[in-house]
Amino acid sequence: LRKQSKAELVSRLEELKVRYEELSAKKLSLDITRGKPSADVLSLSKQMLTCLSADEFSAEDKTDCRNYGILDGLPEAKKLCGEILEVPAENVFVGGNSSLALMFDIVSRAMTHGIGATAWSKLPEVKAVCLVPGYDRHFAICEHFGIKMVPVELKEDGADIAEVKRLVESDDSFKMMWMVPRHNNPTGQTFSNDNLRQLAQIKPKAKDFRIICDNAYVVHDWYEVGPQVNFLKACQDAGNEDLAFLVGSTSKITFAGAGLSFLAGSPANLKWIKAHAFFQTIGYDKINMLRHVKFLKNLSGVKALMKKHAELIKPKFDATLDALEKNIAGKGIASWTNPKGGYFVGLDVLPGTAKRVDQLAVSAGLKLTKVGSTYPYGKDPKDSNIRIAPTFPGLEEVKKAMELLCVCVELAALEKLT
Amino acid sequence: LRKQSKAELVSRLEELKVRYEELSAKKLSLDITRGKPSADVLSLSKQMLTCLSADEFSAEDKTDCRNYGILDGLPEAKKLCGEILEVPAENVFVGGNSSLALMFDIVSRAMTHGIGATAWSKLPEVKAVCLVPGYDRHFAICEHFGIKMVPVELKEDGADIAEVKRLVESDDSFKMMWMVPRHNNPTGQTFSNDNLRQLAQIKPKAKDFRIICDNAYVVHDWYEVGPQVNFLKACQDAGNEDLAFLVGSTSKITFAGAGLSFLAGSPANLKWIKAHAFFQTIGYDKINMLRHVKFLKNLSGVKALMKKHAELIKPKFDATLDALEKNIAGKGIASWTNPKGGYFVGLDVLPGTAKRVDQLAVSAGLKLTKVGSTYPYGKDPKDSNIRIAPTFPGLEEVKKAMELLCVCVELAALEKLT
Repeated sequence: LRKQSKAELVSRLEELKVRYEELSAKKLSLDITRGKPSADVLSLSKQMLTCLSADEFSAEDKTDCRNYGILDGLPEAKKLCGEILEVPAENVFVGGNSSLALMFDIVSRAMTHGIGATAWSKLPEVKAVCLVPGYDRHFAICEHFGIKMVPVELKEDGADIAEVKRLVESDDSFKMMWMVPRHNNPTGQTFSNDNLRQLAQIKPKAKDFRIICDNAYVVHDWYEVGPQVNFLKACQDAGNEDLAFLVGSTSKITFAGAGLSFLAGSPANLKWIKAHAFFQTIGYDKINMLRHVKFLKNLSGVKALMKKHAELIKPKFDATLDALEKNIAGKGIASWTNPKGGYFVGLDVLPGTAKRVDQLAVSAGLKLTKVGSTYPYGKDPKDSNIRIAPTFPGLEEVKKAMELLCVCVELAALEKLT
Repeated sequence: LRKQSKAELVSRLEELKVRYEELSAKKLSLDITRGKPSADVLSLSKQMLTCLSADEFSAEDKTDCRNYGILDGLPEAKKLCGEILEVPAENVFVGGNSSLALMFDIVSRAMTHGIGATAWSKLPEVKAVCLVPGYDRHFAICEHFGIKMVPVELKEDGADIAEVKRLVESDDSFKMMWMVPRHNNPTGQTFSNDNLRQLAQIKPKAKDFRIICDNAYVVHDWYEVGPQVNFLKACQDAGNEDLAFLVGSTSKITFAGAGLSFLAGSPANLKWIKAHAFFQTIGYDKINMLRHVKFLKNLSGVKALMKKHAELIKPKFDATLDALEKNIAGKGIASWTNPKGGYFVGLDVLPGTAKRVDQLAVSAGLKLTKVGSTYPYGKDPKDSNIRIAPTFPGLEEVKKAMELLCVCVELAALEKLT
């Protein structure tokens, strides 16, 4: 597109304006903002609501799950969640319905009590490495606690290791880093095994530096993907076992609002988690743990269910990627990721036009994830990144949304170029 | 007993030693430590496990409860929980399965961010009024955050108002206070309406002083009790609407480990809660909210269920109080409370003998709540208070436990007096 003459561009712009007006006139109401499962995906787990009988409340060890007790989760729930995260049950802590809460609580506890060192709130400055584009809710936690976010580019194969090392190995005010190793939110990228191994070998200057490795999409492959090195294992192998917390949930396996959250860590990290959680709660919902164990059974059960998810979600990813390929490819105005799973496709439009794309889309009835939110402080320096979340709407809606989005992307680019 | 001659005391001591040895020889294994519901009480709510069908996941407003969303709880859950706390639904926030977590989070947020003023962690000292005897888990939260606990005596009709005023109205380092207004943990006392109204009128020097009013036993009457002034309403009437958070749960209504927690507060306090909870979670388990609404329906449903609880729990309280009356009354070595509900009976043994009673009890196979734990820092200055928790064991066990406990109480007293 950029190679075309001014006249050609203007002519194409006029064409697109007409098309845009046609689409606007349809008074669409489309929404590709949030990474939510659709109702039909949720219904794949409908037995969750009925799988326990009135007398099924005993754990394998005879614990009455209706009563108080057990801070770190039922043994069988730890086993199941450990299988999902590929770690032994004894390295697992099972929480409530929100992995965000587990992660928030890690940061909150580090602020108030520190991780075996000075409480972060007592330090003059605390910094976090934030791979970008990244997840707005991760960044929001840092902003909430006044942790200074330093963006580091997420490359095709994972973190920019040299930059991460440059920052955290020389500056002990770096205390944490966020990462989503598989099907990253929002780009869908999956870290390579090399990248994970290198990351596991970093030597942060601060002993209490922790990586929160949010493996929210660990079993969420919609296309073929090879096996991935387990990051906690990689840390162990590198003699760095306390470096990372691995976090997961069944929010995008069973019920987004009523799943299990869980984390895994080294013995020292788990001890720290439990020592603090002790003051916060007597224990999380063991009945819901029992339900999950009954319904999912084990990793095979999880994988069988995720195949059914894939049958419903893959066509939406196909439609998203097809639309981009058909309408935008080769025009030199945008690039996008090619995720093999997860909940998002990352789209980079012509720098300086993402906000305009959003404006055009909203006016025509299409809601997008807040532009900029995939960067710390909501500021995308290039005004270029757009997160596409195709999982919640129906397939036909995704198609309509993508057709409109592509028009908006090209229109905004042409406005800028002409 | 204290009026008897030395010889009489020694003779009685010998008698008791024999009785104690007889009971010890039975190799009992009794436990009256924790305020847990018994299995038969939990089974009164067994329909909770089956009350939803596979297609029942929609809230009244059509929200798909399986999915993400709704930070402060389903409208119908807010209504139900509001009825339990006697406040309008709009003043309610519904949480997860743990009211302890709601309370912990209030204090944690005050530490990291403050309540509309300086973060408590940035202040040289933060103090809490702790009514004693009180709940060990409340005190543990203060200790965890380094909040200095100042004990104030809990009187027959509630807080020692003069002392509370003396402390908090002159010293702005007092930022909080714990109270259990109905069937206090561990004494079972219920605050009088006068006491509640006076407490609602205090004028703390610190504007961000908050009372956490843990109404864990609000519908847990086993005997006749008159109506109680609503403390939040009393605060409103006193022009002090931001003074208190009211907290409750269904842990001792439905399932101790899988209930709903909730809190109520003024618009400003709720706004503060939601502004902070936003960073922690997308929302709590709405399916469990739906289950509770379906099973309990409304306050009448709750009260009908609590009548069934009373049928099972009252005999245990009767047995506890009968044993004390029969074995200890009139001897001048102990006093106890006469709770009309809740989960505990408070026993004050001869000062300086509570630890010895515990020692004797444990040796003979009876576990008691850790002696001292009903006071800040686990230190009962008089070494006198023992918390009796008769709800979890069966009735026959309660009887055996109380027989043994009474022997230990008298034995320890006689050891001291002779």
